[in-house]
Parts: sequence; C-alpha cells; structure tokens
Amino acid sequence: MFTKFAVLGDGAWGTAVALLLAQRPEHRVRIWSARETNGRLLREKRENVRLLPGVPIPESIVLTTDIKTALDGIDLAIAAIPTVYLRQTIERFAGRLPDNLPILSLAKGMEQKKFQRPTQLLHEVLGTTRLAALSGPSHAEEVSRGKPTSVVVASNDDELALDVQKALNSDRFRVYVNPDVVGVELAGALKNVIGVAAGICDGLGFGDNAKSALLTRALVEMTRFGVASGGDPATFAGLAGLGDLITTCVSPHGRNRRVGERLGRGEKLADILASMAQVAEGVYTARSVHLRAATMGIETPIMSEVYRVLYEDKPPLAAVQDLMIRQPKKEW
Amino acid sequence: MFTKFAVLGDGAWGTAVALLLAQRPEHRVRIWSARETNGRLLREKRENVRLLPGVPIPESIVLTTDIKTALDGIDLAIAAIPTVYLRQTIERFAGRLPDNLPILSLAKGMEQKKFQRPTQLLHEVLGTTRLAALSGPSHAEEVSRGKPTSVVVASNDDELALDVQKALNSDRFRVYVNPDVVGVELAGALKNVIGVAAGICDGLGFGDNAKSALLTRALVEMTRFGVASGGDPATFAGLAGLGDLITTCVSPHGRNRRVGERLGRGEKLADILASMAQVAEGVYTARSVHLRAATMGIETPIMSEVYRVLYEDKPPLAAVQDLMIRQPKKEW
Repeated sequence: MFTKFAVLGDGAWGTAVALLLAQRPEHRVRIWSARETNGRLLREKRENVRLLPGVPIPESIVLTTDIKTALDGIDLAIAAIPTVYLRQTIERFAGRLPDNLPILSLAKGMEQKKFQRPTQLLHEVLGTTRLAALSGPSHAEEVSRGKPTSVVVASNDDELALDVQKALNSDRFRVYVNPDVVGVELAGALKNVIGVAAGICDGLGFGDNAKSALLTRALVEMTRFGVASGGDPATFAGLAGLGDLITTCVSPHGRNRRVGERLGRGEKLADILASMAQVAEGVYTARSVHLRAATMGIETPIMSEVYRVLYEDKPPLAAVQDLMIRQPKKEW
Repeated sequence: MFTKFAVLGDGAWGTAVALLLAQRPEHRVRIWSARETNGRLLREKRENVRLLPGVPIPESIVLTTDIKTALDGIDLAIAAIPTVYLRQTIERFAGRLPDNLPILSLAKGMEQKKFQRPTQLLHEVLGTTRLAALSGPSHAEEVSRGKPTSVVVASNDDELALDVQKALNSDRFRVYVNPDVVGVELAGALKNVIGVAAGICDGLGFGDNAKSALLTRALVEMTRFGVASGGDPATFAGLAGLGDLITTCVSPHGRNRRVGERLGRGEKLADILASMAQVAEGVYTARSVHLRAATMGIETPIMSEVYRVLYEDKPPLAAVQDLMIRQPKKEW
C-alpha cells in the first residue's frame, strides 16, 4: 500500500490529485514545482492562485522545488506535467529515482517527435517498468471542490493499478481499473483535439444539436484511430473515451474547447496561446495525429480539419462546412 | 417526391419541422392543432408564443383545426404529438386518411399500456404500413433558428425514407437514412429517462465530471435494453442514440433535464408537472421501461432509480448514491 507520494508538477490537475491524496491522514504528500517562481508563489499563498483560485493547500502538503526533497522515501511518483514539456522536465529526474519506482502519469497528450504515449516516454527516460495512467472525465476545478468524479487507472501491472485505486478511491472520486493502457492514453490525447473542434462550433454560434452530432462522429473517429493503434474499442466507449470527450467538449473549464471557441470567433492561434495560463494539449496533439494518421492510412476527417484550422490558416467556417458536405447520406 | 404536407400537432417540434418544410417554395404545408384554443391563438399571432417565441410562422403555412382541411390532397402526414397523447389524438383521424398514406412520426416515447413504439401505434390505429420515424439531436428552439442540425430517418420502406430525406434535407438540417426503426424509436424514448437523471445531478449541484460519467454508463444501459428489444447497437452509438442523449442531457432547452433538475432541488413531481407548458416524455417512459425491463429480465439501474425517484418518492441523493455504490470496481 502506498503512503508517500510526490506529485511532479504544480498545475491544476496535479494540485487537485495532491489534495485528494492528502485527505487521508496516513498519507504524506509533496508537490514539486518545476519553476522556482511558481514554487515560491505556492509556498507564500498556500493556494494555486492562477489555476485553482479559492482552494487552499493544507499545511500537510510539502511544497518544494528541490528534487531530492521531493523524492525522499516516496512509494509513488505522479507525473503531472503536460506532454509537451514532459520529456525536458522528466529528464531532470533521470538517475535520481529509486530503482523501478512506480510512476502514475496524469498527462493527456502524445509526444510530438516520436508519437510516444506519456508512459512510453517515462519508461524511455526513467527506465521504470512499473507505470500506470489515470484518465477520465475529471476537470480539476470540480475535483478540487469535491464534486463527484469517476476515472480509470490503466496499467500492465495489475497490482500497481489496484494500489493506485486504493490510494485515490473515495465516495466522491471513484477509480475503476482498466487494463488497456494504450486505449486509455490515446483516448485522453485524442479527445483534446475534438475539444478544439467543439469550441470552434461554439465560436461560430452553433448550438447543442450541432455539437452533439459532432461528438457522435468524433467518437467513431477516435475509436478507429485508437483501435488501429492497438487500443480496445471498449475503452473508447468508457470513461476515458466517451466520458472524457463529453466533459472536454461541454465544460466551461475546458481549455481546448476555449481555444477552439476563440478560433471560431476569428482570433489568431498565436494570440490565443500567448494569452493562456495553461497548456491546451489538443493544439499539439492535432498536429501529431494528423501526421500519424496519414502514415497509418487512417481517415480522421474531424481531427484533420482541426489541424488545418490550427496550422494552415483554414477559416473555421470553411472547415466545418467541408466536414458536413463530406458526410455520407447513410448513417453508416 | 412529396410536396404537400400536414403536420398533425402544433408543439415546438412539429412547428419547427413545418417551418423547415415551408422553406422550399414548391412545398405546401399545413399545421393542424388538436385544440381549438391553441389553433385560434396560432392564427392570431402567427407565432407559437408559448413554445417557440420570436419565431414567426410564414403566411404560406396553413393553420387549421379542421381535420378535412388538414388532410386534403396531402402526400405525407407528420405525426407531431407526444406519445402520451398519441393514441387519443390519432384516433380522430382513423378512417379519414387516404389509403396507405405515408406517415412520419416525430414522437419520442413509448405507449404506456402495451409498450408500443409510436409507429406501431400509428399502424394499429390508422392501418397504414408506410411508416417512418425521425430522430436525433434536434432541439426545436435551435432548428427553428437555423442552427445546424443532423438527424436520422428510419423506415422499413427504403423509398419512403429517401423521400423524407429529400423533403427535409438542407445545408443546415442534414438527414441521414438509418434502416433500424426499432433502435431509432427506442433510443429516442430511452434518452428522455436519462435526461431526467442528468437533471437530478444538476439539481444536486454535481458538475460535468459526474454528468459525463452518468452518460457513459447510461449509453451502455440504453444499448442493452435496445438490443434485447431487437434494435441494432450501431443505432445507439449514432445520432439517434449518443447524439440525442448528449443534447438532451446538456441543453438548457431540455425539458426532461429540467424536470430532473427541479426534483434534485427538492420539488415534488406533481408541482413540477403542473407548472410545465410541455410534456416531459421521460417521466412516463421511466415507468414503462422500468416495468418492461423487469419482465424482460434486463438490468436498467439508472432508469430504475429514475423510476423510484419519480414514483416511489425516493430522495434523489439516495438514488444517486445507490447508483455509485452499485458500480463494479472494474470498468467492464
């Protein structure tokens, strides 16, 4: 059973997971900040003022920027770093972790260059084989305020998955075990691209009818890509797939959706990204998936239109219209 | 090709479909009101002031309460009557329709006593064998304002389905053909029950994480019930299933969701129903499905909890808690 945890990364989701863990008196929890300025601000305010305002961080959670302090005596490391920064950040830990320390990944994206899933990247850089991924519909803002949430933990190591479940499970935060690591990580990455598409519909002034139709088509596309990559179709119909897709596309908290909304209203991507406090992973995943789908020979019409809006300056309305025209006359 | 239409029923959805049909200059469209008072109000205002305020009804649409005027020379009748009133209303047309006139059903519910689908009931009362059903994520408020919408038309008569598609399809209202009448009608009925459940979560102050998890489980339950009744699982993953489920549970327009929300806040069902201008079909379908599932030996945990809240005065919070406890530790 795990009792000592280090959350590596001080973003909204990492902080929320640290707060969950710290609810049990027998747990010792640390949050490691990658940047000195962020770490200092966190220690001063005992609150993530930018990303989780109004949620106090209890004194029992140790806040540090020192790698040695963070890792000392821990049972489980929790990688809470956006995929786009994961490699450069985690390289600082290479050779400093206890042998084969289990690591739980919270990232929802794909590494750009090699199209690696977060746990693949963690294995490559840190060498550990005890890896798990947590995913599902779980906006940090809601979790940190005790709103009921259900997620899945996926691992090739059954015992690790059950230990993570035991450490995190509560009445308000239900953790289910899913053996399909590939599907869970891919679903978590792909849904962010659809979040951008859903936001584009919002920005263009479309309604819930259009968004629901988009999500229906998008799940088919996500599943097709995921299964061709070795995932289980059931994962895409579950919490990490459909569940997270809905939250991402519907919730006002969704930052990928917000990027899309601003694109749909006519803003430029560079301006949007420059003004955001958080990373919108879908922006990067859209490019990776579009390129990967081409090499795999898979059709990803929705995600590829998102790519064209983001990287080829295609007008959002034209992208949506091309999608609608493209659809066949029969439903399947 | 159809050019003369009678919409039987003057609710929000019937009115919105009449407006869609009337966009083509070659179409002749009538709306028949079941009640004299409603018909008079419609003619005076040329607007459905209660249900679609601010949307004018063009002069080209004939408004009548006279059955003979409504039916004279039509190619297609469109039954736009809530299932709970369908039999008593449609009996007024028995023996008065042209032989084997095709009928398109817009109803989303199941008949209480015999658990008949709307097209089964129309066949029994009117004798016609040329029947089709229209379904999908299509809130009337959005359709009547030209927001993009995608739906399916289902029929055992391929030619009829294609003719309905031709009559209704446009850039903003995409109609797909689906051969699975049973699945399309069941999905349309069942999603309303889940709409009540989603509203209960809203009324209890839960967030998008919980609602997304609920919808994920609900789709599995809807599919199980639908397939056991002869429907195609692909229908439940499509526009009439997943698509309509999302809109129903997310849109502020959803009246089933609104009933649930008020229940979640502690109001009594009788008070809620007494204050509503529209029929919330999910309230009746919840009972039919709960009873039917028992005789079929199928588990419908979410829909049965909705039944208990509606008809056995079970506190909404207790119902939701029982659902969460009930869930297995593994995702499937």
